[in-house]
Parts: sequence; C-alpha cells; structure tokens
Amino acid sequence: MKIILVGASGTIGQAVHADLSQRHEVIRVGRTSGDVHADIGDSDSIKRLYLQVGEFDALISTAGDVHYGPLDELTPEQFDIGLRSKLMGQVNLVTLGLALVRAGGSFTLTSGQLNDDPIRQGASSSLVNGGLEGFVRGAAIELPRGVRINVVSPALVEESLPTFGKFFPGTKAIPAREAALGYVKSVEGAQTGRVYRIGWTRDD
Amino acid sequence: MKIILVGASGTIGQAVHADLSQRHEVIRVGRTSGDVHADIGDSDSIKRLYLQVGEFDALISTAGDVHYGPLDELTPEQFDIGLRSKLMGQVNLVTLGLALVRAGGSFTLTSGQLNDDPIRQGASSSLVNGGLEGFVRGAAIELPRGVRINVVSPALVEESLPTFGKFFPGTKAIPAREAALGYVKSVEGAQTGRVYRIGWTRDD
Repeated sequence: MKIILVGASGTIGQAVHADLSQRHEVIRVGRTSGDVHADIGDSDSIKRLYLQVGEFDALISTAGDVHYGPLDELTPEQFDIGLRSKLMGQVNLVTLGLALVRAGGSFTLTSGQLNDDPIRQGASSSLVNGGLEGFVRGAAIELPRGVRINVVSPALVEESLPTFGKFFPGTKAIPAREAALGYVKSVEGAQTGRVYRIGWTRDD
Repeated sequence: MKIILVGASGTIGQAVHADLSQRHEVIRVGRTSGDVHADIGDSDSIKRLYLQVGEFDALISTAGDVHYGPLDELTPEQFDIGLRSKLMGQVNLVTLGLALVRAGGSFTLTSGQLNDDPIRQGASSSLVNGGLEGFVRGAAIELPRGVRINVVSPALVEESLPTFGKFFPGTKAIPAREAALGYVKSVEGAQTGRVYRIGWTRDD
C-alpha cells in the first residue's frame, strides 16, 4: 500500500513508521521534516500535500496541537488552537483527501484518552478528542467505494512521561510501539467507524 | 433558583421553561426573542448577556446551529458554523459564565444522539456533539465551588418530525417535555460530568 503518514516525526508517528514501513510504502509528512512538508492547521497546505502525493491507499494522522491550561483561564483563542490543528486539521485531511483515496482505502486519525478519562488543564483536549471520535463515527457511514475510517485513542506513551507524566497522576503509560498497533489494525484490518482505545479501558 | 435559559424559544427550550418555571425564576434568552437577547456564536454578545443578568444559579443552553450536508460536499466553512455556534457558543457560555455562577450552581448544555448514532449528512453534528460531551467530562473535574456541569443528549423530538423526521429513518422520537426531564435532572439533581441520553440508548 501507499500510505501517507502525517506527524511522522512525532513519538507515535515514528513507531507507526517503524511498523508499517516494513510492509508498505510510507510517505512521511511533517511541518518541517519528512518526505513532504505540510501544516494541517492550514487547509491550503493540506491541498498542496495531496497535489504532491496524488492517489493513496491509506492516510494516517498522528498530528495536531492542543492548548492545555486551567479551565478558568482558557480563552476562546486558546480553544481555537485545538479546533484549527488537531480537530479540523485532521477532519480536513479526510474531506480534502476523499477524491484521492483509492477504493477500499482508509483514513486513521488520532484522538486520546482525555475524552473519557479527563485530567486537570485538559478540557480543550477532551473537547477535541470527543469531536474527532464523533466525526469518525459520523463519516464512516458516508464514505464511498469501501473507504474506511477509524480513530486511535492511545494511552499516554512512555516516551512522553518525562514531559507530560506529571499531568497524568496514576495513569499507566505504554510504549509507543504498542500504540502503533492501533494504526496497523486500522490500516490492514477491515473495520470502520471504530475508536481503538490502545493501552487503556473506558470505565463507563 | 435563578436560571438562565439560552434557546428558550426553541422546541426543547419551551418544554424546559414549562417545567422549570413552575418552581424557579427562569430568564429566557434568544437571538431575537425572550427576556434578554444574545447570540452565542458571538462571544461579545455572551459577555453582554452576563453583564445584564448578573449572578445566577443555573445556566441551561438548548441553543446552537450546525450545518447538515453530505460528507463529500462539506466545506471547512460549513464545519465552522457548528464549531462557532453549537460547540464553542455553548463552551463560551460556560467559560465566560464561571465568574458569575453561584456556589453549587450548574451548567447544562445540549449535544444530541448523532455522536453515537450517526445519520447521513450528519458528520458535522456528530463532531460537534462529541466535542461537547468531551468538554463536559473535562470541565466537570475542574469547576470550582461545587459548580456542576452536564450535557443532555436528547433523542429526536416528536415536534421536529415534520421537518427532520425524514433524515432519521427508524429513529424513535420523544415528546419535548420528556427531553426536558434531562435538564431538570441536571439542574435540580447533584450529578456532574454526565451525558444524559434521553429517549435513546447507546448500543456499544
């Protein structure tokens, strides 16, 4: 398969590349690194990405920024960071890529544990992740030509513990290579409209 | 209690007013109707609303627009309608109202069935509803002074069947007065961080 991997230089992106590149052609996309450059917060940049890359079998996104901060200090502009980047950036990768994805191809996005398992300072992330999961369920039933879509909601990864661990008290972390399994399952499997919770379980 | 009801002229808003106004002071808010006018798509308008109304015990929102359309025709601008109005409009009602809500007070927002039970042309609504539910779970754990927050996810209401019924094949509708129970439970009850699914059950 020809797979576009947006966010390839990130912790999870690298692990996804390490796994899938053994069996597929993986095109690495990053803002300033990788085979092709693109900024998902800018829909014109996404259009240029697809013009460069052309038809493909799978698009994986492990990209997107969100602002973290105390609820009573979050401004509309800070919410906008997550809306523009992680939420609509990934949604636009889907809607703008629809014309180029081959029959039976797939989109795989990234949400995160905070939708169902919130932390302090994470309300914007909870919002963005919830929006992504709703979108994926909604989009899955409208995709044409057997095209599928799933979203991976990875647990905190061990590689991020030094930076983010203190914000996640009592939260089990997993190696990024384990989080990568969700993307492999989505791309090489046959399911659609699913949220793959990797390394954690929703308790409701 | 002093309750601010945003979206009071809508089908569900009217039913919420009919129930809660029997026991509480309810201030009706609408874009062009009600006791106070405000447009939740404009954060300055929300600020003016709170300046006029002052301290309160409960804020209920049954308001917000979303664009419906086929996935392969949805533009970023059409997604923006739901992001600005139903999603961030309701989120801004919370963040901008935090300074005025009394201890033990509450916020109650409105999402909808499409997050978990999607229909054709509803991907933007699924996204918005998912985002609202994530936000409410995230915000609930950070609210100060015993302030609570919940979101009601009502089924399709019978009063909307003539307009929207054709988009919801095989979907049971409920009277708006039954949907109103979710808001009563949120305001007069003691729970927080909950999604009240009224008139339907999530099947996963």
